[in-house]
Amino acid sequence: MPAEMKAVQYRTVGAAPEVVTVPRPEPGPGQVLLKVTAAGVCHSDIAVMSWPAAALTFPLPLTLGHEGAGTVAALGDGVTGFEVGDAVAVYGPWGCGACLMCAQGKENYCTRAAELGIRPPGLGAPGAIAEYMIVDDARHLVPLDGLDPVTAVPLTDAGLTPYHAIKTSLPKLSPGSTAVVIGTGGLGHVAIQLLRALTPARVIALDVTDGKLRLAHQVGAHETVLSDEHAATKVRALTGGLGAQAVFDFVGAPPTVATATACAAVEADVTIVGIGGGAASVGFGTAPYDAAFRAPYWGSRAELIEVLDLARSGAIDVHVETYALDDAPKAYEHLHEGRISGRAVILPNG
Amino acid sequence: MPAEMKAVQYRTVGAAPEVVTVPRPEPGPGQVLLKVTAAGVCHSDIAVMSWPAAALTFPLPLTLGHEGAGTVAALGDGVTGFEVGDAVAVYGPWGCGACLMCAQGKENYCTRAAELGIRPPGLGAPGAIAEYMIVDDARHLVPLDGLDPVTAVPLTDAGLTPYHAIKTSLPKLSPGSTAVVIGTGGLGHVAIQLLRALTPARVIALDVTDGKLRLAHQVGAHETVLSDEHAATKVRALTGGLGAQAVFDFVGAPPTVATATACAAVEADVTIVGIGGGAASVGFGTAPYDAAFRAPYWGSRAELIEVLDLARSGAIDVHVETYALDDAPKAYEHLHEGRISGRAVILPNG
Amino acid sequence: MPAEMKAVQYRTVGAAPEVVTVPRPEPGPGQVLLKVTAAGVCHSDIAVMSWPAAALTFPLPLTLGHEGAGTVAALGDGVTGFEVGDAVAVYGPWGCGACLMCAQGKENYCTRAAELGIRPPGLGAPGAIAEYMIVDDARHLVPLDGLDPVTAVPLTDAGLTPYHAIKTSLPKLSPGSTAVVIGTGGLGHVAIQLLRALTPARVIALDVTDGKLRLAHQVGAHETVLSDEHAATKVRALTGGLGAQAVFDFVGAPPTVATATACAAVEADVTIVGIGGGAASVGFGTAPYDAAFRAPYWGSRAELIEVLDLARSGAIDVHVETYALDDAPKAYEHLHEGRISGRAVILPNG
Amino acid sequence: MPAEMKAVQYRTVGAAPEVVTVPRPEPGPGQVLLKVTAAGVCHSDIAVMSWPAAALTFPLPLTLGHEGAGTVAALGDGVTGFEVGDAVAVYGPWGCGACLMCAQGKENYCTRAAELGIRPPGLGAPGAIAEYMIVDDARHLVPLDGLDPVTAVPLTDAGLTPYHAIKTSLPKLSPGSTAVVIGTGGLGHVAIQLLRALTPARVIALDVTDGKLRLAHQVGAHETVLSDEHAATKVRALTGGLGAQAVFDFVGAPPTVATATACAAVEADVTIVGIGGGAASVGFGTAPYDAAFRAPYWGSRAELIEVLDLARSGAIDVHVETYALDDAPKAYEHLHEGRISGRAVILPNG
Repeated sequence: MPAEMKAVQYRTVGAAPEVVTVPRPEPGPGQVLLKVTAAGVCHSDIAVMSWPAAALTFPLPLTLGHEGAGTVAALGDGVTGFEVGDAVAVYGPWGCGACLMCAQGKENYCTRAAELGIRPPGLGAPGAIAEYMIVDDARHLVPLDGLDPVTAVPLTDAGLTPYHAIKTSLPKLSPGSTAVVIGTGGLGHVAIQLLRALTPARVIALDVTDGKLRLAHQVGAHETVLSDEHAATKVRALTGGLGAQAVFDFVGAPPTVATATACAAVEADVTIVGIGGGAASVGFGTAPYDAAFRAPYWGSRAELIEVLDLARSGAIDVHVETYALDDAPKAYEHLHEGRISGRAVILPNG
Repeated sequence: MPAEMKAVQYRTVGAAPEVVTVPRPEPGPGQVLLKVTAAGVCHSDIAVMSWPAAALTFPLPLTLGHEGAGTVAALGDGVTGFEVGDAVAVYGPWGCGACLMCAQGKENYCTRAAELGIRPPGLGAPGAIAEYMIVDDARHLVPLDGLDPVTAVPLTDAGLTPYHAIKTSLPKLSPGSTAVVIGTGGLGHVAIQLLRALTPARVIALDVTDGKLRLAHQVGAHETVLSDEHAATKVRALTGGLGAQAVFDFVGAPPTVATATACAAVEADVTIVGIGGGAASVGFGTAPYDAAFRAPYWGSRAELIEVLDLARSGAIDVHVETYALDDAPKAYEHLHEGRISGRAVILPNG
Repeated sequence: MPAEMKAVQYRTVGAAPEVVTVPRPEPGPGQVLLKVTAAGVCHSDIAVMSWPAAALTFPLPLTLGHEGAGTVAALGDGVTGFEVGDAVAVYGPWGCGACLMCAQGKENYCTRAAELGIRPPGLGAPGAIAEYMIVDDARHLVPLDGLDPVTAVPLTDAGLTPYHAIKTSLPKLSPGSTAVVIGTGGLGHVAIQLLRALTPARVIALDVTDGKLRLAHQVGAHETVLSDEHAATKVRALTGGLGAQAVFDFVGAPPTVATATACAAVEADVTIVGIGGGAASVGFGTAPYDAAFRAPYWGSRAELIEVLDLARSGAIDVHVETYALDDAPKAYEHLHEGRISGRAVILPNG
Repeated sequence: MPAEMKAVQYRTVGAAPEVVTVPRPEPGPGQVLLKVTAAGVCHSDIAVMSWPAAALTFPLPLTLGHEGAGTVAALGDGVTGFEVGDAVAVYGPWGCGACLMCAQGKENYCTRAAELGIRPPGLGAPGAIAEYMIVDDARHLVPLDGLDPVTAVPLTDAGLTPYHAIKTSLPKLSPGSTAVVIGTGGLGHVAIQLLRALTPARVIALDVTDGKLRLAHQVGAHETVLSDEHAATKVRALTGGLGAQAVFDFVGAPPTVATATACAAVEADVTIVGIGGGAASVGFGTAPYDAAFRAPYWGSRAELIEVLDLARSGAIDVHVETYALDDAPKAYEHLHEGRISGRAVILPNG
């Protein structure tokens, strides 16, 4: 293996990411070195790069990329259960591994990560947009087992995040129920497919252009509704006045959150996934009785295993646009400009 | 049975309730006539009596009382499973009995009640603060089976409502967890006892006076905290910084809802039961990850059966103050003035 | 309406059912008279007709038919929520309506039915294979709402029974899981379709002939395996050695129950629906760790509503063979001889 | 630290365990060395020592002890989150850490342990009845956080095993329900306390002597019944004929399993924990409708954290008898002879 490698780093607050050459890392005890086959580019990276220096919770430079897949290049001392050459995806929301949350595989909610300085790859630890990456523990690897890393890598966030949200709501999505998906982009177009594969619910998709609604239909939405101030009224009309049993808002802006609330049935789940600055008002008279409003974050280790299992069955078709490592800065530009349909994926060794 | 009876009615918008003499009702087919042994007086009656005429969803006069217990005085044609003389409590949130919600006993969320003009006794249909009352269907009766109607009658609302809220949260109230009860009055002092009987959670009670906090201790709270702007900080300190796994706000005013939100742990349940006009903001950054915020209403038929079973085991001690039927208007005055400790109960035939 | 009607009755222990003329019943208070549009013929009727007199828990003659659909012909006094002319299906496992089980709509497990002498139509109460039938309470009606009664009527048992079994197992049927269906006849061929509509599980069907396995494939099974002594080994091979997360045995004979046990994964659900006299041995070393073995009976009111909702979405295609009322005895013969593919349905007014 | 240590080993098939001197182990990368403060002695060790050589799945000699507690003596390379001197308990059912089961902390059901040769300490790997022990990964440590290791160490199996069984049944143990505990020894006397702390169920304990039933009363059983052929009839009488909603059989012999089945209500959980060679028959007519029969094994990582949290609240009082390391062989003798009340605990450094 070479002593150096290329990586895409966020180096200066406010600046664009840069392609740099850095030492290739070596795996310490318990760690695993991956040769990266694919790495996803996500809106949340852009959000982080827009923060002022004071808001950053980690030092720069930062190698970007919290969606990663690769082949095992070297095992640190003491690692068992995996071998060099294994093709794997990386579970990103690393935790301590031992607290009550981590003991259930919910490392996304680790109670000790902040105290112990543990951060996800690409969001504090060196990320996946590089020729090689270090995974801190073998438990954060999931075998790809035949999946194409290029279309599978977005599942580690753009698949896992909606899967977690939807899995929580499965008991409410019985026959006769309705699920509403607001925002049919990177996460939303996966969510529609997950809902169709996992539930008998009727799926209503909301977005702001006819083009996006056509995509929503193509990936399985039963009904589409333009996302404007009349949307909730239309959803109610489509549900006999009762509203939807689950609403997933992948935009999370004030108007979409208002629509989400107004769409919801008694005892519904309303899940706000998007980080668009909106918040629902939950109290007597402001929300349907017993509707549960949540804003979750990423998902659990078992859920990632399940998402990949589902993909292996052919139920999910993630639309990806690929870029070489040297073009990663351009991929971020395109994403920022809204020019990516589906998910941008970097091929660091492609 | 006499042809006439006394009843306490809300007759004129904005006026106080009055003791009147009205014809004793006769049970139609499928209905049951109860001789009322006890009827509860509730803050929500006062709220309804404060509404302007336009807000009322039913005509006046209205016989008050949505918490009722009695003995079966007569069975309408076709009623089976109960006999004259049976001592029963009344399940109040009547529904159609046949829709998907009612088919699970969740008549509080009946999807057809509004359309069919079905309303709870005391909140549209003639209520329990009368010598006799009509129950529309035998399925709305729960045998008292040895319980004292005077202390059991508040359980039909002041017991059932917190029981429903707490039952929803039971999976989150494992060993090591914390439950916060905000407001230790009629519903809250029952909630503390329910939490102690049903869960291994540590219970922290919040209220605004030392006297109320003493009562909270007496009924089982492990810790008490004065409900002010520092309360959430204190709850966090008591929980190692993590917050509480379940928060029940029986006040529901803007400051208590803010405290409830600030107390909550990741993945907590925050249940707003009080109708004090507050609403929580649920979105990215405004609420703990995956905390579920709900505003429920009353409870299900099975839950009422369970609450009464729990009372029969001796686990709940409802503090009641009793009044004769003629003094019911005074009971409402006392309640309005905050002079009732626990629950006021009318004894229409006492 | 005529004063008399035709009905198909089991009149003499051990004898074949007969077409007879009896008085048309009139609905008492709270009851509903249906003009029967379709009535299902079930193996369990044949089982009952094979019992000796001492085993019968009800007197003869008995009008047969526990799967019924019809239009409301008359409402007894006090019935609300339905109108003459409404097309409905009948929930068959009638209970008291008021006990803890019935309060959750689980009337199939009513704790008071035996004591109160309540029996399902066609299994004690007069059944659906007649021109008219009495339904004891409007809560036992589910609107057909556009469904064809002929294909919908088997759903009240042949749909509801597997639906209940499968609904219990939904939490275990995540992506990557496997469900095994043993016996692909009346209930089994519906079960395969339910599994496909409700879960992402891979479905493996077992039966004893190639013809039956072809039908299983047609209705959605991913894999089929001949049901013999090698079947469990094949299922294990298909599941990487782990076994299936849910096994549904619609035969319930000793060899199929042995296969079901041998197919099951750790933490699986093994549900024995068939009444073929088999029983699984559950103890340390005889069953996979934490696998849950159950023998359920029919389903709940809410579950019937959900099954009909699912059918309305087009997800279930029940194969039926229709007979005139006069030919009902022949339908029982054909069923007994194994000559019915799918479900036999009588059209009493067809 | 010394280079050698004492350990109690099972060295020869069929022979008694011996106190030997062996090299003190050193922690490899990712491993943790504990100085053992307490180690539990369990019936299952005796069972293993009674097996013929052919049945052993691991080589001898074997250092015994699958219940362990200690202080961290040394950290292997790469271990984080723990420090030398930390007092911890050991989660015993080690798994691979990465499979779907392990990703949920259910390492007791690891799907790869056999393939990878992973075995629990004291049941294949060197166990806790030694001055020092190696824990293979820091995730298998749970901080004692103030608990006395002597009374806490039995909780890692004698507490965790019934806790897992009971936690599964919590949804069925609502107010008004009944739980039956068969066998009130090591695990059973903890189970009674767990049921009282975690549920509002009435607890009925069954055992074969008055002395054992007195202990059952002391630790919280509401009722006790002599465990003989009349026991199930008595349980039915105590439950109004309905039976118990959960039955836990810590004996698992043919007669107790028969009693467990005969005690169970419709929809009950029947959990066979004891390895006494009995098995329940589950099929139509042989078991109550929809009662779930299971034979589980040990518990999950999160469940061990919760059991220790519960102990910290004072809810569990494990009766222990302590022995020096040199007396461990005698402890096994006493256990075998039925002379231990509660749990025998070895103090290797005491």
